[in-house]
Amino acid sequence: MIIVGEKINTSRKAIAEAVGKKDAAAIQAVARAQADAGAQYIDVNAGTFLEQEKVLLPWLVETVQEAVDAPLCLDSPAPEALKEAMAVHKGRPLINSISLEKDRYDALLPVVAENPCKVVALCMAQAAMPTTADERIAVGAELIEKLTSAGMALEDIFVDPLVQPVSVDVRMGPAVLAAIAGIAERFPGVGTICGLSNISFGLPARRLINRHFLGLALAHGLSAAICDPTDAELMSALAAVNMMLGRDEYCAEFIDAYEKGLFSKHA
Amino acid sequence: MIIVGEKINTSRKAIAEAVGKKDAAAIQAVARAQADAGAQYIDVNAGTFLEQEKVLLPWLVETVQEAVDAPLCLDSPAPEALKEAMAVHKGRPLINSISLEKDRYDALLPVVAENPCKVVALCMAQAAMPTTADERIAVGAELIEKLTSAGMALEDIFVDPLVQPVSVDVRMGPAVLAAIAGIAERFPGVGTICGLSNISFGLPARRLINRHFLGLALAHGLSAAICDPTDAELMSALAAVNMMLGRDEYCAEFIDAYEKGLFSKHA
Repeated sequence: MIIVGEKINTSRKAIAEAVGKKDAAAIQAVARAQADAGAQYIDVNAGTFLEQEKVLLPWLVETVQEAVDAPLCLDSPAPEALKEAMAVHKGRPLINSISLEKDRYDALLPVVAENPCKVVALCMAQAAMPTTADERIAVGAELIEKLTSAGMALEDIFVDPLVQPVSVDVRMGPAVLAAIAGIAERFPGVGTICGLSNISFGLPARRLINRHFLGLALAHGLSAAICDPTDAELMSALAAVNMMLGRDEYCAEFIDAYEKGLFSKHA
Repeated sequence: MIIVGEKINTSRKAIAEAVGKKDAAAIQAVARAQADAGAQYIDVNAGTFLEQEKVLLPWLVETVQEAVDAPLCLDSPAPEALKEAMAVHKGRPLINSISLEKDRYDALLPVVAENPCKVVALCMAQAAMPTTADERIAVGAELIEKLTSAGMALEDIFVDPLVQPVSVDVRMGPAVLAAIAGIAERFPGVGTICGLSNISFGLPARRLINRHFLGLALAHGLSAAICDPTDAELMSALAAVNMMLGRDEYCAEFIDAYEKGLFSKHA
């Protein structure tokens, strides 16, 4: 399971303030905490700054990569901001995200196809948001076909089935889980990725819901999650489920995490 | 999901003491707490009393049913104790358990076939413990065939795939989950049941593991669990997973449980 640390996002007040003041130390502390907690990618999102994004996203890339030796998830639909950020990024970033919406697809395809990177392919088409698993798989399949035709490797594509809140419609839970399983089964080599927290939008006890959603998604084949790796209960859920799915020989990672004090005292 | 409250078991010190003193009030308090927390069946087990079991098991049945209006899970391999307990039980008990071990099968078949009851069919054969999912499904299939031939309804059979600790072999996790799914798929109408806690034997943070195992087992089709319904974190896991599997219209049960304060403050 690849963990993408979600915390450096200007929709969060503390991050918006740090970015506004170009407070590199504050950003680097959040980056380091996520890497130390197990994030393999650090997400950076400066979307709330609108016009300034194409200056601030590359600033975030340089600032974060000064502090942590990890690739970043460049979280923007804006081609100019992505190009500037990719130009200063060390290693291969994960671009989040392309979709099947025509304007977005046309603008982003050259950006992802002409630069060494991995890409999140969001199951969103021109028309309405997908509701069923089959709709998600159909959009994912079309994106995979187009991206590979444009020269991308299967292994560099992470399909995001688009998590929608169960508070809106309880069928959204089974639909997204079946979409994860369907894409994993139909397209070996392709990754799947979710932002976890949208599942619990509008409900109480959101962290509880999110960590059990992570467990279910893992069991259905999810290969990457955009989440908060500093949430010890989330990470202990990941360790426990990973072990029960037979992916932790001799339970070594689980026991190691326990001994390092990762698990909360409520475990 | 049917919850069988596991706490009235003389392998627990406090219960052994209460049973030894015939302290009905203590037993009834544990029964009531489990029923109030959502148990549909109350398990009673006096196995550690050996020869006295055939007196103490019926005493437990009468004592518990004085306090709670619920059927019991009669947890014993001893035909005489079961017969005495069934004679005083009100309603249809769940007998835990018959297996394919010849002596046990021959002794228990008349008990379960000749009295109105439901039965747990444990995936244990004469030979060694099962290791793979296929071995479990084969034993389960044979038990289902024999029990239905003896006149039992499919709906009265709960197959227990036999949970073994992942600390012994990590393949035991995927094997038991695949067995649950396989039995649910091949035998519509038949229930599946597990004692959860054996999965975490030998490991730290057992409650953490148990509640995530419950989530995974539910997603694979488990229909009943023998567990501690007074563990608020276990029950909140159940509510969250049930909702995400699309089984809680309008998230009503989840929100209701939250508003009743079921979830721990760490949710």
